This record gives sequence, C-alpha cells and structure tokens, in this order.
Amino acid sequence: MKNQAITQVIKSWEGQNQAIDVIFGKFDENHYLNEVAPGRNRGIYLLGHLTAISDLMLPIMGLGNQLYPAMEAQFVTNPDAADLPAPSIGVLKERWETINQTLAGHFALMEEADWLSRHTKVSEEDFLKDPSRNKLNVLIIRTGHINYHRGQLAFLIRRV
Amino acid sequence: MKNQAITQVIKSWEGQNQAIDVIFGKFDENHYLNEVAPGRNRGIYLLGHLTAISDLMLPIMGLGNQLYPAMEAQFVTNPDAADLPAPSIGVLKERWETINQTLAGHFALMEEADWLSRHTKVSEEDFLKDPSRNKLNVLIIRTGHINYHRGQLAFLIRRV
Repeated sequence: MKNQAITQVIKSWEGQNQAIDVIFGKFDENHYLNEVAPGRNRGIYLLGHLTAISDLMLPIMGLGNQLYPAMEAQFVTNPDAADLPAPSIGVLKERWETINQTLAGHFALMEEADWLSRHTKVSEEDFLKDPSRNKLNVLIIRTGHINYHRGQLAFLIRRV
Repeated sequence: MKNQAITQVIKSWEGQNQAIDVIFGKFDENHYLNEVAPGRNRGIYLLGHLTAISDLMLPIMGLGNQLYPAMEAQFVTNPDAADLPAPSIGVLKERWETINQTLAGHFALMEEADWLSRHTKVSEEDFLKDPSRNKLNVLIIRTGHINYHRGQLAFLIRRV
C-alpha cells in the first residue's frame, strides 16, 4: 500500500498543474503577452518559468535529464524581457504538458523509500544531518512555487 | 515515530508562515496600506485574509473555535475596501502569530491517524468515498493558499 500522505502531496501537485492549465486555456494566446501587473512578468514568461522549473525536477530527483535544457537560461537564469526570443504560448503549453506527464509517469512508479531518499543537490553527508532534504521535499517546494506564481497569474484573468 | 511525509508537510506550512513574517517585517506599517498592484488587494487586507483563513483551520480540523470570528466577515466573506474599519497591521501581526502558535501546538500532539481522519466539513459517508478529505489535506491546501498570496505580496517588496 502507498503512503497516503505522499499520495496526497502528489495529488496536490497535479491539482496545481491543472489550475495552471485552466488559466492558460481561458483566453487566446495574445492575452498572455500582457504583464500580470504593470512592470511585472508577462504571462508567457511565467508559463516558461514554471515549465523550466518543472523540467529541472527531472535531474534534481535523479529521474533523467531536462527535456528542454535551453529553457533554463531563458526562463530561470534571466529575467523577463519582451525582446527575448521565446517559444509561443502554444509551444510552451505543449512542453508544460509533456514535462508534467513525464514526471507523473515516474511518480507513479516511486515507492515511499524513493520519495524519502536524498535528492541530487544534497550530499550524502548533509542528507544524514537532515533527512528531510529528500525527493518529497522537492515536490512540496515545487508545488508551492506553482501556487506562488498562480497567485500572480490570477491577475491576468480576474478583474478584482 | 512520526510519519516523515506528514512532518515535512507541517514544516512546509511553518516555512510559509515565516516567509509571510519576513514580508511584513520589512517596512513600516504604512507601506502595507498600499495595493499589491493597481486595483488589487492591499497588503493589510491580505494579511487579515491569511490570518482569518488560518483561524478557520481550528474548527475545520476539529481543534476548537475561531479565536477571532469577526475577522471572517471582514477578510473572507467581504472583499477589500479602504473604508472598512480594520485592525492595524500591528494587531493583525499579533493575531497571525497567536493563531499560528495555537495551531502549531495542536499539530505537535497529532499522530498520523489524526491527520488522516476526516475534517469537519465532510460527512462520514463522503469521507468513506474519498479518504483524502482529511485534516492533512486541509493543511496542504492552506499551505498552498499562503504561497498563492505570498506571490502577490512579493510585489510590495520587490521592484521587479
């Protein structure tokens, strides 16, 4: 039997991903070229950012290489800039979907011991000192990160 | 021994609370009377909102009554309005702290079986159909809710 608490954390991550799908399914692509608020990131940048951060979960959790490594410089290392060449919203939505399905496929096969094992950015020595620096923690933090930017993206779809 | 996954979910909630403390500790009180973006909620409203939602965790998790029931109408049922009489930022920060400490005190005594038991807003019948409608889920959802508004509050403290 799976660990119920871990199952719920995974479900919460899936729910956040779906909430992002809803936001980017509401208007035509041009709408997401707007900033979420004056002087803040554009919708398209935040979708790229969330996609790139989820892509980085693959190596951090020891599940493989990034699927779209070039996105890291574009949407993580560098801030938003309207003159940066970026994939279209349509392409970003496809990548977001592909990465989430890839991760979900791995998650379905992971047992409790896998979730509680160390992620690849922490040394064995440091992990012994703090066993919470595990793969489950990566998922918890990343789920929170989606929620954080979803709060900002909400400004694109809600008048108040 | 405590369930490690549940311990990490609690730790993540505590981390979010601390991140809110950092935001509201950065400037003098007047700063938080500003809207996070033009036409959006003010900082003071969001602090009241987060405090009232955390206060509601007490009855939802069967841990007691709200400490500040009047805040529900002010910061949950009703939207932000500059002419609403609101407690000062200082008072709200004290209440936020009191509620979080009260919850943390309860959480420290809860065992895995308590976390996986149903919350008070779901019937026994519906809980049998979906056992994830438990107290742990309330904590996961509320932690995400803090993150969501923290993404908006970040606009009050970051120029970009």
